[in-house]
This record gives sequence, C-alpha cells and structure tokens, in this order.
Amino acid sequence: MDIAATTCSAKDLAVLLSSSNSTSSLAAATFLCSQFSNISSKLSDTTYAVDNTYLLFSAYLVFAMQLGFAMLCAGSVRAKNTMNIMLTNVLDAAAGAISYYLFGFAFAFGTPSNGFIGRHHSFFALSSYPERPGADFSFFLYQWAFAIAAAGITSGSIAERTQFVAYLIYSSFLTGFVYPTVSHWFWSTDGWASASRSDNNLLFGSGAIDFAGSGVVHMVGGIAGLWGALIEGPRIGRFDRLGRSVALRGHSASLVVLGTFLLWFGWYGFNPGSFLTILKGYEKSRPYYGQWSAVGRTAVTTTLAGCTSALTTLFSKRLLAGHWNVIDVCNGLLGGFAAITSGCAVVEPWAAIVCGFVASWVLIGFNLVAKKLKYDDPLEAAQLHGGCGAWGVIFTGLFATKRYVNEVYSGDGDRPYGLLMGGGGKLLAAQFVQIVVIIGWVSVTMGPLFYGLHKMNLLRISTEDEMAGMDMTRHGGFAYAYNDEDDVSVKPWGKVGPTSQSSTPTPTLTA
Amino acid sequence: MDIAATTCSAKDLAVLLSSSNSTSSLAAATFLCSQFSNISSKLSDTTYAVDNTYLLFSAYLVFAMQLGFAMLCAGSVRAKNTMNIMLTNVLDAAAGAISYYLFGFAFAFGTPSNGFIGRHHSFFALSSYPERPGADFSFFLYQWAFAIAAAGITSGSIAERTQFVAYLIYSSFLTGFVYPTVSHWFWSTDGWASASRSDNNLLFGSGAIDFAGSGVVHMVGGIAGLWGALIEGPRIGRFDRLGRSVALRGHSASLVVLGTFLLWFGWYGFNPGSFLTILKGYEKSRPYYGQWSAVGRTAVTTTLAGCTSALTTLFSKRLLAGHWNVIDVCNGLLGGFAAITSGCAVVEPWAAIVCGFVASWVLIGFNLVAKKLKYDDPLEAAQLHGGCGAWGVIFTGLFATKRYVNEVYSGDGDRPYGLLMGGGGKLLAAQFVQIVVIIGWVSVTMGPLFYGLHKMNLLRISTEDEMAGMDMTRHGGFAYAYNDEDDVSVKPWGKVGPTSQSSTPTPTLTA
Amino acid sequence: MDIAATTCSAKDLAVLLSSSNSTSSLAAATFLCSQFSNISSKLSDTTYAVDNTYLLFSAYLVFAMQLGFAMLCAGSVRAKNTMNIMLTNVLDAAAGAISYYLFGFAFAFGTPSNGFIGRHHSFFALSSYPERPGADFSFFLYQWAFAIAAAGITSGSIAERTQFVAYLIYSSFLTGFVYPTVSHWFWSTDGWASASRSDNNLLFGSGAIDFAGSGVVHMVGGIAGLWGALIEGPRIGRFDRLGRSVALRGHSASLVVLGTFLLWFGWYGFNPGSFLTILKGYEKSRPYYGQWSAVGRTAVTTTLAGCTSALTTLFSKRLLAGHWNVIDVCNGLLGGFAAITSGCAVVEPWAAIVCGFVASWVLIGFNLVAKKLKYDDPLEAAQLHGGCGAWGVIFTGLFATKRYVNEVYSGDGDRPYGLLMGGGGKLLAAQFVQIVVIIGWVSVTMGPLFYGLHKMNLLRISTEDEMAGMDMTRHGGFAYAYNDEDDVSVKPWGKVGPTSQSSTPTPTLTA
Repeated sequence: MDIAATTCSAKDLAVLLSSSNSTSSLAAATFLCSQFSNISSKLSDTTYAVDNTYLLFSAYLVFAMQLGFAMLCAGSVRAKNTMNIMLTNVLDAAAGAISYYLFGFAFAFGTPSNGFIGRHHSFFALSSYPERPGADFSFFLYQWAFAIAAAGITSGSIAERTQFVAYLIYSSFLTGFVYPTVSHWFWSTDGWASASRSDNNLLFGSGAIDFAGSGVVHMVGGIAGLWGALIEGPRIGRFDRLGRSVALRGHSASLVVLGTFLLWFGWYGFNPGSFLTILKGYEKSRPYYGQWSAVGRTAVTTTLAGCTSALTTLFSKRLLAGHWNVIDVCNGLLGGFAAITSGCAVVEPWAAIVCGFVASWVLIGFNLVAKKLKYDDPLEAAQLHGGCGAWGVIFTGLFATKRYVNEVYSGDGDRPYGLLMGGGGKLLAAQFVQIVVIIGWVSVTMGPLFYGLHKMNLLRISTEDEMAGMDMTRHGGFAYAYNDEDDVSVKPWGKVGPTSQSSTPTPTLTA
Repeated sequence: MDIAATTCSAKDLAVLLSSSNSTSSLAAATFLCSQFSNISSKLSDTTYAVDNTYLLFSAYLVFAMQLGFAMLCAGSVRAKNTMNIMLTNVLDAAAGAISYYLFGFAFAFGTPSNGFIGRHHSFFALSSYPERPGADFSFFLYQWAFAIAAAGITSGSIAERTQFVAYLIYSSFLTGFVYPTVSHWFWSTDGWASASRSDNNLLFGSGAIDFAGSGVVHMVGGIAGLWGALIEGPRIGRFDRLGRSVALRGHSASLVVLGTFLLWFGWYGFNPGSFLTILKGYEKSRPYYGQWSAVGRTAVTTTLAGCTSALTTLFSKRLLAGHWNVIDVCNGLLGGFAAITSGCAVVEPWAAIVCGFVASWVLIGFNLVAKKLKYDDPLEAAQLHGGCGAWGVIFTGLFATKRYVNEVYSGDGDRPYGLLMGGGGKLLAAQFVQIVVIIGWVSVTMGPLFYGLHKMNLLRISTEDEMAGMDMTRHGGFAYAYNDEDDVSVKPWGKVGPTSQSSTPTPTLTA
Repeated sequence: MDIAATTCSAKDLAVLLSSSNSTSSLAAATFLCSQFSNISSKLSDTTYAVDNTYLLFSAYLVFAMQLGFAMLCAGSVRAKNTMNIMLTNVLDAAAGAISYYLFGFAFAFGTPSNGFIGRHHSFFALSSYPERPGADFSFFLYQWAFAIAAAGITSGSIAERTQFVAYLIYSSFLTGFVYPTVSHWFWSTDGWASASRSDNNLLFGSGAIDFAGSGVVHMVGGIAGLWGALIEGPRIGRFDRLGRSVALRGHSASLVVLGTFLLWFGWYGFNPGSFLTILKGYEKSRPYYGQWSAVGRTAVTTTLAGCTSALTTLFSKRLLAGHWNVIDVCNGLLGGFAAITSGCAVVEPWAAIVCGFVASWVLIGFNLVAKKLKYDDPLEAAQLHGGCGAWGVIFTGLFATKRYVNEVYSGDGDRPYGLLMGGGGKLLAAQFVQIVVIIGWVSVTMGPLFYGLHKMNLLRISTEDEMAGMDMTRHGGFAYAYNDEDDVSVKPWGKVGPTSQSSTPTPTLTA
C-alpha cells in the first residue's frame, strides 16, 4: 500500500498504523517523514524568499539615496556647476558598480580572509555566486548601494572646484578599495573589529557596533572629503579679503528639500535594511516579538533622531541667525540620521532623541570650527557625515541596551553594552578604536591620493573655469534654459506675449 | 530510543510505531507533536515577518507622500514663498514625529480606552512596546505617516500668508490631539463609531467604514484648513477691487506634477497598506483568493478612481476654460484619490470609476463656490480634501458590496452594506454621522485655535512681509539663484558668454 | 477520545497510537492528516501573500517610472512646452488605466485565446476576477504599469510639435490595442511566439525570450514614435537652412537627471519584478538557491548593463564631442537598461557588461544616422528604445545560458539557448522573428494612424503655436514664474531688494 507524499489519506494511513507488522509501520513512518521533509523544504524556501524580498527592496531604497544626493548636491551648488555635480553623482553609481563588482565586494566580504581584507576567489566578479546561504545577489546589490553612498558624500566636500578627472580617480579608489577594507574590518564575519565575528574572538570581548555605518560609511566619506577640501582650499569668493565668511548660496532650495526628503526615504532602507534578514523569532514566550520588531524599532529610532535634530537646529538657528532656515533644518535632519545610523538597532527610542539633540549641536559646532579655520565644504559633508557620524559611534557605546545588543548580535546575554546603561566601558572602548582607525586609514590612503593629484595639477580647476562655472567650460553648456536661446531668430515672445515692446525683454539667462 | 526533533528518521520512527508498548508510543507521539510545534512556531514567525515587511514598506510609501506634498505645495505657491512652505512640510514630519511618539499614538490607539480617546500607559512614548500582536513598531510608523499627512493638507490652505509660529502651534495641536482623537473613534478597536470594534457593539449595527481615511485624514486636514483660511482671509491680490478672482499662479508646474506623481506613488501605501496585514486566506474553496487579492483590488480601485477623475477634469476644464490644464488635471486626480480612500477596499473596480467621475465634479463645484464666497485656498485643499473626502465617505455608504464588507471587516455575512447595492441604509447613516462629527469636532477645536491666534496677532503676516514674500523677510533669502549674485565682482558671464555687451545683462532674480 | 486539530497532545496521541484497534488508528490518522492539511493550507496562503507582496511593490516601482518619464521629458524639452509634455505623461497613466482595464488587459492575457489576441470574457473590465491562481489584481496592476510605459516612450519622439488631440488618440490606441496584442504574442501562456507557452508547442522549439520587454515594450514604444516623428517631421529650427543639425537644448538638466534616476529606480521593478513570483526553490542540493536568487541576479545584470553603457558613453562622447556630457550619459544609461531588459534573467553578470558596452555604441550609431537623415526625436526615443531594444533582443539570442533558460522557463535542460554559449541558433532565430514582427505590426498599425491624423490636420500644431510654445497657446500659460507677474502693481522687489532703480528690473519670464 502506498500513500502519495503530498496528500494525506486518513483511511490509508489508519490501516498502516493499526497494523503492527514492520512493513506497514515503515510505510507509515516513511510517509510521515516525507511530509515533514516537504514541509521543512517549503518553509526553507519561504524564509529565503521573504528575506530576499526584504533585502532587495531595502537595496532599492538605499539606491534611491543616490538620487537624493544628486538633488541635494545640485541644489546646494551654484547654477553654473549643476551639471558637473550631477554627473559626479551619476558616475559614483556607475563606476562604483563596475569596481565593486570586479573586486570591491570581494575585498569587503570574501571570506575566509586574513582579517585585514577579503580575498576569497568566488567573490571577485561574482564568479561562483551564490555559493552559500546569506550571500545572495541581493546582498551584493545592497552592499554596492552602500559603497556608492560613501563616494557620494565625498563629492559634496570638493564640489565646485575639482577637476572631473580627479573625481574619476578618487571615486574608483574609494569605492573599490578604501571603503571595502573598512567594511571588511567592521562588518565581515572575520573582520578584526567586527561585532559579528563568527569565532567570537571579539575586540575587547565586544567588537565595535556600527550597525548601519555611522563610521563605516559616513565617517569614511566625510573624512575623505575633508582631505580633498583641505588640500585644494576654499572656493574663490568663499572668504573675502578680510577673511570673513561669505555664503555662496546654492541655486535651488527646492532641489535641496527634494534631495533631503529622498535621503530620508532611502534611509529606511539603509538602517532597518541592515538587519539583512527579517524572518527570525526572538522569544518563545512572546511569539509576536522578533527581528521584524527590531527592524521596525530601527525605523522608529532613525525617524526620531533625525526629527529631533531638525527641530533642535530650527530653534538654535532661529536664535543664532535670526530666521527660520529650511536649508539648515535639512542639514540638521541629515546630521541626526548620520548619527543614529551606528546605534539605531540597539538603542531605545527615547535614546534616539538624545542622539538627535546632540547631533544638531555637533553639526553647529563643527560648522563654527570650519568657519574659524576657513575650511570650505559646500555641502558641510565633512562636518555632517564625519562629525555627526563620529558622535553616533560614541553614542552607541553610551546608550546601547543589554537586551538589544544580545538579540541583534546573537549573544547569550553576556555581551558588553552601553556605558550609561550599565554595560561597562568595553563597548565604548571598541567604539573609540573604530573612530581612531577610520580616521587613520582614510587619512593615510585618501590624503596622499589627493595630495598627489594636487601636485600633478589634476585636482583643482583653473581660476577661469571656476569663475565661469564648469558647466559652460567642461560640460557643454548651462544646466537651465528658461527661455529659448536657440530660437533667437524667430522671436516667439514678440508674437504671442501680452507685454508691449516697452516692457522688459525676455531675460537671457543662458547668455 | 530517541529522535531529534528537527530531523525525521523513518527507520527509527517505524520501530516506535510498530511496537505497541506505551513507552514507544509516547516517544513517537512526542516526536510528532514536537514536529508540529516547531512547524507552527516557524509558520507564526513567517506570518509576522511577511505582515511586518508589507506594513513597513507601505509606511515608507506613505512617508513619501510628505515629499509629494512638499513639492506640490512648493510648485503651487509663488517663488517668493517657496522656502516657507517647504519648511512647514519638513516640520510637519519632524514635529509630528515627536508629538505622535509622546502622546498622539497613545490617544489614537492606546486600548482599552473610554471610547472617546485612548490612554493606555504602554503607548505613551512607546514605553512598553510592543506588548501584543498587531501593535508592533511598524504600526506606529504607519500611523505616524498618516498623522503628518493630515497636517500637510492644512498647510496648503493657509499658505503664503501665515506666520511661522502659528504654523508650529496648530500643527502640533492637530497631529498630537485633534487627529488622534478622530482616528480613535473610527479606527481603534474600541472607537465608538469604528467598524472594527472588538465588542461588536457597532454604531447602527454597522459602524462607519472609512477604510483608509477620506474622513479621518482628508476631511480633518481639509476642514482645519478651511477654518484657518477663512479666519485669516484671502491673500493680497487674490480678488481685485471689483471682487473678481485673480489667479495667483504657482511658480513651477514641474514641481506640481512631480508632487502629484509622488502622492500617487505614496497612495499605494496609503490605501492598500491600510489592511495592515496581507497574509490571510479568505476562502477554502478558492485558496488563491485572500487578503492579498483584496490588497491588490484596493490598489486597482484607487488607480481607477484617480484616473477617471483626472480625465473628467481634463475634458470638463477644456469645455469650461478653453484649454488643457495640467494643474487642474493634477488636482482632479488627487480629488479622485481623496474620495476613493474611504471605500477603496469594499467596492468593485467599476464603482471606483463612478467615484472618480463624481469626485471631479465635486471639486469643480466646490471651487466655484469658493470663488463666489471669495474664499482663498492656494492649494484648493479644503475643496479637494474636505469636499472630495466627504463625497468619498458617502460613496462608501452607497456602493460598498456585501461580500467585501464581510471579508474585510470579518463579518458573518450579516453586516449592512451599500444602499445602492441592496444593503439598506444603516451603513449610509453611519457614514453621515461620520461626516457630521468630523466637521463638528474639527470646527470646535481648530476654529477657536485659529481664532485665538488671530486675536493675538499670531496668525497672519504683515502686509509688507506678504508683498515681499516670506522667504526674504523670514527665511534668510530667496529660494532660487539661477545666476550668481555673490560673484558680481568677477562677472563670469562677461568672459565666456557668447553675447555682446549690448545684450540684456544677466537678470538678477535674487536681487 | 478527540484531539483538537490545532494543538498536539502527545499524551492523547500516544494512547491512540499504542492501541491497535482500528477506531483509534483512524482517529490518530485523521488527526495527523488534519494537521498536514492545515499546514499545507497555511503554506499556500503564505506563498500567495509573499508573491503578491513582491509583485505589488514591483508594480509600484514600475509606476514610478511614469514619474521618471515625466521629469525626463520635461527637462528635455524647451521651457515653453513643459506643461504640454507633462500633461501627456499624466494622461498616459490615466487614459491607459481606463482602456487597459476595459479591454487592453483582456486582449493581452485573456486565455484561452486564438493565439493572436486574448478574448476571455472574465478579463474584460476584470468582470470575474481573480478566477485562477497567478492572475490576481497585482498582476493586472503590474501589466498596466508596463502598458503605460510603452505610450510614454512614444510621447518623447513627437514632443514639442504634436496636437494634444492626436496624442489622446494614438495613446489610447497604443495602450488599448497595439501593445496588448504584442504582449499577448510573447508573454501570454498561449501566445504564438511565447517562450512560456503552456502546450510546449514553441516557435523553433524555443519561443522568443523577451523577459521584461526590450522588444514588447521598448521597441513597440520606439517604433511607434519613429513613425510619428517621421510623418510630422522635425521641429522648426532643428536643422538650419543649410541642413545642419542645431541642438534644441532642453530647459533643465536637473529634471533630466531626476527623471533618469527615477527610471533607474523603477527599473528594479520592471526587470526583477517580471518573474511575477519569488517563492520558488530551484535545487534540492542547494536549498539557498532559488527564484529569489534569480530575481537578485536580474537586478545585478540590469545594474551592470546600464552602468557600463553610461561609462562607455561618457568616454566616447568625451572623445567625440570634447566635453563630459551628463545628458548623454543619462541617455547612455537608459540605453543600457533598454537593452538588458530582454535577457536580464537568463545571462551571466559579465555578459550584461558586454550588453551595455554595445548598447552605448548602438545609441551613438543610431543618433548619427538620425542626424544624417534629418530625423528629429527630442528624446532620442526611437534610437534609444527602438535601437537599443532591438540590440537587446539579439543579445539574448547570443548570450542566454543553458542553466538560466531552463530554470526561468521551467525546461528540462533541453531548451535552445544562446548561440555564443553553445546553444545553437534556434533561440537567435526566434529573436529575429520577434524583431521583424514587432517592426511589422507596429508599422502597419501606428503608421497609418499617424498618417491619417496627419492628413486630417490633427497631427502637427501650427507654426505660430510651435514658435510661441504650446503652454502659452494651449495649456493656459507658462510653466514657470520665478517672479510674480500678478503682483506687478505692488512691486515687492522695489521695497526689499538691495538693488537700486538703475539695475535690471525684475525679469518677466512669463510675459
């Protein structure tokens, strides 16, 4: 007697069970086991499908941040350099895709590694991929979107005065080597300072907790930008003859707000997405509480930190500058996001408010320092991503809770956690180490690179180009044409416009 | 003999089954039950993961609507007030996050409640959260995104003439108290008029069906805006000395279209997302038909209603005004969306077309009334969200189908449904009650607030500020700089531009 | 003795198992089977929920492409036609929704069909829908978003010179009939050239593989545009008296970049989403490898092809034109995407790089040909979507791998695949047939339509309208107002601006 593995006939099964001869029992047992095996296989498929869906859509959101960067940068520079800065943003993504595919990804996550840099053959150009669970194409796409974000940050610092060739060189170097190395240290399962090392040989018994990359992404991008901007110096006119700061206002607040909101939107992929999986229960006693809750909580802490920082900036700037400034509020918001990115998964929502409040002041403070030192960063990228990012790394060492650290990093309840939450100083020590090594590593790699480009006259554009704007001199024309210069001969407005000859003629913005 | 709970050895199991001694049988039974328990636990985890993924990404889409509002509002106002209106949109989200976190969410969904307003301790500041299934962080995030949408609607009505301080006050009050109360009445499991009351003690045996909030969100925002705009009066120049209407055109149709499309995009989170969960089968006989189908159908009804309304507006306006107007089409589209939002889950696709067709005429009609009454609403927000929203609530009472009402609201087939579908007048009566109480509640809360601000001279800006534009006087400068005022001394265009000295000089838009 | 179907009591079950009487055995067997039945039902629900979530969110992304098209088109035309082109983009979506709902969808997917066109009653106006697995509302929404993309492509080719009425006519015809027919042939389970025919009676034993529509969507839209643009001829001023090409630059590079990035974002719904489902395992021996991996790989091939094409275009144009051109890079990027769309699911990542490299040159080549032939296509739509789309169809015939073709199209390992991969010429032959029939079908339907409109003077606008711009003459005004023409009397700038009377007065862009 035989029962198909996919349907269950109680009548047939009963016959098998009631008989006590071993053949029947074996048939019954075989049937039962085959059912369990099918179910188990289907449950496994389901888990992979859910986790990959979650990670892929998170990756798409992170990719949307590149659009956010492009619009934020475009709006923050003067109209004459709009095409230049947008082209660099498109190329971050494009050149980054090729270099990260060929070797960046292998450097970052090719395991086993030597602890310093990944090198496993199957990851170069995704040559035999996927070859194990947890490293599927969605993971590659997600990590690529992170890598190009770092390069996007740097491009803001050196905007409006950098040669396009220099840009191509540093961007590939950063995305293909500098950033992957750092992400290997802190995020790979055998990075020397990773909190998720598979061998449990953790730095200070803890490892640095940089959940979504306040250090790995934001500090790396910010410090790279700092060196670039320092070496080439401020834009012409940024400080007057007496050394006073002169605001070189961006050309479109609408683009700035558009870009900021898009970054906010994308950050929901950046931070909550960094769990990489969502289908994982945490507590038997509370079946409704699991990784999905932690993912949601991460979205909430992210929101609260950014919003608090925005509000703090709004009122602080009102007091300091006398008006309600939407551009500053946007930067404050982003500073709050950059700061919470490290600890978003392991702190309570109320702590996120503390994080955002301080982040606002960190940004204001670093901006004052930059002014004093005549440091010119058109997007405040070094101050925002570098400064607030560093604060975020420290914040995690102070406010990470015991329960969340052990849930998120699969501990048995004995992991070090935030100093102010009673978890001792080990985590905080690891966080300081992270800050120091990131500053060091990015400085010794990107500093010489920018300096070399500078010495070879490949870094800064000529004074004429800078005055005229790069769009006219290097990119084929001005970004905007609100009237039609090509139609000069046909003079359209003279025919249909309601205005008489005596009124102002069509302004030739693109002249 | 022992079998590990996770693998199934047919050989070992067979030995247990064939023996008829009770120890072996207990071992077999224990093994089988442990298998079922593991499977059940994994299925439960899977359900939470799927539903939370669905709700989180829906929440992200709803959040994107805030960007849509910002761009729509920016494009619809004059250039001189762009930074002002965008700042209010950023702050809706930011201030709303803090107030909704601290108490708004608890007012709305903290159960058990007194029927009027929620007050359960664990919801204030998410203090012990999540504490039960169905109320996870994703739910908080989703509801926050709804709350800020209501405030965003109101900001459109009072644009271009309202003090920023007034804005901060009303926005927090609306997001933190007025809106949460309404959402408690209609959406909480113990709201007095909710169609999903857990105790089945439903208003008129039905409860009001406002699935995604034509009333709860759109009418609340629209009526709040109506009072604000009525109390402060029209913008200078909106009606000429003879009382004729003068269009004060927005400064960028591109931003209007961008904002409209983003709102459309986000509405797919707003309406289909309001199911909150997606993993739920409906019919044993049709296993492929379940909540996922209802979610998809909701996306389809939403699409059809908006599109019908857009097309109706296109042709109506062509007849009435003589040209094809993209701005009006955008408003018509949004009116269709606002209307279908109430009934989207419980009507047939063809009914959505009826809904959209009427919505277009409701909007046109209310706009005519507004003109007659010299009511000035820069975004048509009261007409669109208030008027079309109210039509949507009534529409549901007319066209809700028996089957969908019972599926979506878990009825046994005996719930009242749409009057025109043969379901009697009970649902329609409940819908009318909803309209009346929303108008009443918002009027008695927001009316006095705006009036008080008006009396304290905190509501309307000065004539000088209004003439000059708030960006120059209150927000630090003009939003756009298509030329470079800061570079006047270096005269870049004189050097590289093709035009001679005799041509028009660079226009100084930002002067 | 009875055991509830949902919980498992080992003690009770043991009693049943140990007894050898047939009643007890039947009870035990009934219980076990009922458990399996419940589990199976829940697993089925889960699969539908996961697949529909995946498809719905993919559909939302594809819809976002419509916003991308709107912004790309707006930025690529002159300011005076901005409202016109954006209105056509809104209407693509709106009119397309109604016509696709009423009959387009039934033409495309109503099965059983006659092989040429679908006609099953239950699909017209979704009249009894969903009636079987795999054809849920999410599928309708997804296909609608595809249909409007085709119309959006065409609108680019005929921009800046086409009557709005012509637009309404061709758009409905294309979305409601021409495109659905083609999609029926290649994508329906009983299309004559479909690679997924359910009866295995495949064209050349293979069927044409056009996974996400390089041919079905992009060629259809591009060739329709080609005929429209050919018949109405180039814009005034596009070629000077000596026949030399004169660039009529678009009015906003920012909008072009915004639109391009949004299209990129949406393409992650277009290509990976075309799997329609994600929960499907492929290999027993590698349980972590399944359709979710193929979906992710598709996202990766899409990314690499677009990025390679963008980089190739960047350097090629630098050599050919002497500057780094962001607009050209954007077009190159989109050309790479249009090309990989056919083979994205069945080629290796490295092959995607080949695809993108060639796509860039195909676009450059077709643009040179267009210039020679004085063909004017403001968006390069025919060259890009038609040309690169055709290359993509051929590319698939060359590079499709054996394993992926059999996995994605459920073959037993014996399907023809790419010529260069050793799979013979059958697939390539089918691909050529696809190109020929698409060119033929679109030409015999859209060609006469455009010609008829031309003969009835319904196609091209008057010279006056073209000179003045359609926004002023047909759409109620200019799209932008960076100053406030309505406030001329109040002269705001005179009061607050820093400039003296002698400087340039406020420019009247909207005059």
